[in-house]
Amino acid sequence: MMNDSRLSALRERMQKKHIDLYMVFLADYHASETVVDAFGEIAWLSGFTGTNATIIVTAEEAGLWTDGRYFIQARRQIAGSGVTLFPMGEEDVPTVEEYIEDVLPERGRIGYDARVVPLAGHRRYMEIAKKKKGKILPINLIDPLWKDRPPLPKRQAWILGKQYAGATVKKKLSQVYAKLGEAGADGLLLSDLCGIAWLLNLRGDDIRHVPVALAFFYMTKKKRILYIAPESVDERVKEHLRRNHIHTRPYEKIFTDIRKLRCKRLMLDGQSVSAALANATPRGVKHIYAKNPTEELKAKKNRTEIANTLKAHIRDGVAVTKFIYRIKTGIGKEPLSECMAVRILHELRKEQKHFIDESFDTIAAYGANAAMMHYEPDQARDVKLEPKGFLLVDSGGHYLEGTTDITRTICLGKLSEEEIHGYTLTLRASLRLMAARFPKGVLCQNLDVLARGVFWEEGLDYRCGTGHGVGHVLSVHEGPNGFRWRITEKLPACELLPGMITTDEPGLYEEDKFGIRIENELLCVKGDKTEYGQFLQFDNITVAPIDLDAVDVSLLNEDEKRTLNAYHKKVYETLAPFLTEDEAKWLKNETREI
Amino acid sequence: MMNDSRLSALRERMQKKHIDLYMVFLADYHASETVVDAFGEIAWLSGFTGTNATIIVTAEEAGLWTDGRYFIQARRQIAGSGVTLFPMGEEDVPTVEEYIEDVLPERGRIGYDARVVPLAGHRRYMEIAKKKKGKILPINLIDPLWKDRPPLPKRQAWILGKQYAGATVKKKLSQVYAKLGEAGADGLLLSDLCGIAWLLNLRGDDIRHVPVALAFFYMTKKKRILYIAPESVDERVKEHLRRNHIHTRPYEKIFTDIRKLRCKRLMLDGQSVSAALANATPRGVKHIYAKNPTEELKAKKNRTEIANTLKAHIRDGVAVTKFIYRIKTGIGKEPLSECMAVRILHELRKEQKHFIDESFDTIAAYGANAAMMHYEPDQARDVKLEPKGFLLVDSGGHYLEGTTDITRTICLGKLSEEEIHGYTLTLRASLRLMAARFPKGVLCQNLDVLARGVFWEEGLDYRCGTGHGVGHVLSVHEGPNGFRWRITEKLPACELLPGMITTDEPGLYEEDKFGIRIENELLCVKGDKTEYGQFLQFDNITVAPIDLDAVDVSLLNEDEKRTLNAYHKKVYETLAPFLTEDEAKWLKNETREI
Repeated sequence: MMNDSRLSALRERMQKKHIDLYMVFLADYHASETVVDAFGEIAWLSGFTGTNATIIVTAEEAGLWTDGRYFIQARRQIAGSGVTLFPMGEEDVPTVEEYIEDVLPERGRIGYDARVVPLAGHRRYMEIAKKKKGKILPINLIDPLWKDRPPLPKRQAWILGKQYAGATVKKKLSQVYAKLGEAGADGLLLSDLCGIAWLLNLRGDDIRHVPVALAFFYMTKKKRILYIAPESVDERVKEHLRRNHIHTRPYEKIFTDIRKLRCKRLMLDGQSVSAALANATPRGVKHIYAKNPTEELKAKKNRTEIANTLKAHIRDGVAVTKFIYRIKTGIGKEPLSECMAVRILHELRKEQKHFIDESFDTIAAYGANAAMMHYEPDQARDVKLEPKGFLLVDSGGHYLEGTTDITRTICLGKLSEEEIHGYTLTLRASLRLMAARFPKGVLCQNLDVLARGVFWEEGLDYRCGTGHGVGHVLSVHEGPNGFRWRITEKLPACELLPGMITTDEPGLYEEDKFGIRIENELLCVKGDKTEYGQFLQFDNITVAPIDLDAVDVSLLNEDEKRTLNAYHKKVYETLAPFLTEDEAKWLKNETREI
Repeated sequence: MMNDSRLSALRERMQKKHIDLYMVFLADYHASETVVDAFGEIAWLSGFTGTNATIIVTAEEAGLWTDGRYFIQARRQIAGSGVTLFPMGEEDVPTVEEYIEDVLPERGRIGYDARVVPLAGHRRYMEIAKKKKGKILPINLIDPLWKDRPPLPKRQAWILGKQYAGATVKKKLSQVYAKLGEAGADGLLLSDLCGIAWLLNLRGDDIRHVPVALAFFYMTKKKRILYIAPESVDERVKEHLRRNHIHTRPYEKIFTDIRKLRCKRLMLDGQSVSAALANATPRGVKHIYAKNPTEELKAKKNRTEIANTLKAHIRDGVAVTKFIYRIKTGIGKEPLSECMAVRILHELRKEQKHFIDESFDTIAAYGANAAMMHYEPDQARDVKLEPKGFLLVDSGGHYLEGTTDITRTICLGKLSEEEIHGYTLTLRASLRLMAARFPKGVLCQNLDVLARGVFWEEGLDYRCGTGHGVGHVLSVHEGPNGFRWRITEKLPACELLPGMITTDEPGLYEEDKFGIRIENELLCVKGDKTEYGQFLQFDNITVAPIDLDAVDVSLLNEDEKRTLNAYHKKVYETLAPFLTEDEAKWLKNETREI
């Protein structure tokens, strides 16, 4: 349980600096989804450990904004901290922007660390400040209070060989130069860690479960500079960079070098480049705001990446299937718990060839815990599994060949009617999206209803996207692809292209009751070419059984049954060779035709 | 059959004026969908009479661009004119813009009449001209050639009373003033004829099947001026305008008055205001480009409009149902033809109370003719109906109470398997969209796949939107709502709102074989409010039987059957009281449960 002494100390500093409204972000200098502990100001101040949060502090109030995945968890964690929850998207809950506009006094002063705020966000806040004739002070008030703030990591970077990356740095650089040319830019500033890692075929170990190194990258026709901790670069990496004519400079030098940039027209992405950097370029440098050019390039996986990713999925499927076997056959016979489930799955993944790391912290959530979309089992309050209800396990692995993300909701015994109904809806939703066929040109936003419509028909929904892009030995979440229906500045309309991999993970989350999610990864591939154009479709590349024990078969239509049976046939045929005889026999039944 | 003498004459004039590329548009000064004969330059030059076309003439080539609805018709009509078809959207067919960029020489000169080009289009052409260091000459080269160009109509305008409009001009003006205020504008220039008609509760008779008067409207806080032919304004209308403090000026005076506008910040919509007008405002007038503020206001029908529209649909449904009865019981027994079908339907509509006019030229297309989406029967080559295949009838009426648009594809006898399959797909598509439920916030573009996905699954498609907004005693086609999946500058993402009426009209068109379309109008209404938010759904307000004789019932799933049966029950109960005993008995069977 937190207490509110930190909040009081922050308010004292706000008063001293005449700041009316101070903002704290869960963000690093790169707009990363996961940040290293050094950027854990939200947790330090409020106790909340979810991956999406903003805190706004005024003299009277302190609010934490987070999304539907975290409402339940946030309420528990911030109790006592003096911070109250603003559940995003709920009726009558103002957005961060609406709140600021509402509470900021005329000529009020907003403070935040502009190094962790992307330019796009900064502009939104500037507009509000302007309306109130106020101003924004780029300042970090938490730094002086947080005495034991951890240092930035400087772990060893490593090269992802061409046999895994499928394309040389030279080729990727030339693709990026082409994009600069199209946009009339002669320089590019990249803050996005995954973009830099993809472009340079470099990986690292700085961010938990995201194999990247903290870095910035600046390139012009003549010059390429990687800003990275010298400790992260050994001789092999140095040689790799040298061969590609890339110089290195210490990581933090970007903040001073930026004032002396020499290009004329600098491309930068306002969604990932911070306001502190963007606002520090010399006067003569014209900004060209454009989507980070590596984003779409890396989203369209190349042949090598695809072939390798399929291999990774088979290994991952073997581990997950052995895990399900262990849980379903062990339940009621041996002691099992959420934390044990995490350990068992980890051990099974570790046995797989070329396993690097989990791609995120495994979610193993029993019963009502699964209603928290991003629940993590807690060693100190481990939960015993019983032969009833659901165990939801959402996990994934990084292999040298690729990154996986899979959720299976496992029936441990007796289920309520509501659980069976919810599971069946979820299954139908996932199957309908999986089976989609559509002409080239179609947007992710056009297809979301295929999954979500199954829930909407009954007045139900899930408070998150239906799926996200998956990186290749990079962040398990990547853009621009993702199944969702909303179109926003941050998540704009996105065409589905062959080679994109997107998760299909509908679910149903009923607070204090249960949580259900089924997640597969869909590779977009070419289908038939007809008189109406080139059609595309999906290849479900995730390989693990979907629990039939929870399905009300009478609710599935013939198309849905056909899709499920074909998938299960493939699962059995792919995995059986890697299983014990008992496991294979069990899997045969698990993947039976319905 | 055309010959190419007009094209030759145009090329001579191009040469004299040193114009490398001349563009001809099917457009008036208002970006109207249907233009009066005075603007029929496309037909004059090429013979093509469809409602969407652009012609580009160079010294070497003359191309006509039109969309998928018209490929077949255009090929026939332009034969011999020297103009060749560029079928839009087909593979390897350049867009108008791509073509211009391709063929315009360096420093080349483009000519067109800037009064008929909306500012948004003009800007696109300017960009291309700029790339080539060329320029655009606002000039009409056809005027001097087209000796018998018809004059502009000046028919009587009339008032749509409050009992039909549901809101006073005063209220509507205040809504528009509010929109101007939000955008920081102090003036508005409206070119959109339907927007003006809606705002002023005025209707007219200038455009075929669109009950509006040719007019421009300019308003500031102090001044409101309607530019309209004096002949169109009688004492009643004058008094109506006077009561609302609206002055009138002759229609064509806008082109000189525009140079003396007195406001500071003028709102105008670049999609409907012409380049000629936009470019003629005085230097001191700042432009505020915004969506025409009347568009969304008029799309959300008010209570009176909705209640009245339901009445109009019942009357229209009575006429259409009597028509179907006449055709289905008469076929093989009495002589019937496409043109006779049009006349019969017209007579039946005319019998209905408060009928004003057809809302567009009735499409009655037998057999393969229906593959042309916008086919019109031809008196000179009338086609006899036989007791086999389909008769597709797409028609609608304007009533004082509202405007309708309905398509039924009628089985006249024996059908091929392909026809039955296509009809069943079309029916399933329309039912699935009709039955949609979704939370508030959802976009039209999110739902299109519900209808179209049925076709996509089989590699099929239709080359048009799934549906469009419907005006209220205005154009049968209106924005911003419309079911489609593409998001473009001209047709941006649009949220579905209660009160919007949108057609649901999937179809299948197989050249030289058949055409099938089923069209209903869907009124967006509030559904349940659940913990996941306010849900919306559709009320199918079209009332006429859907031909069961063409359905392969085995392909419909239970949900689809339920939707169809419930609809047919409503059709019977609503219409039976207005039918003869024979008709009602027949309708009972036509609407039988399946």
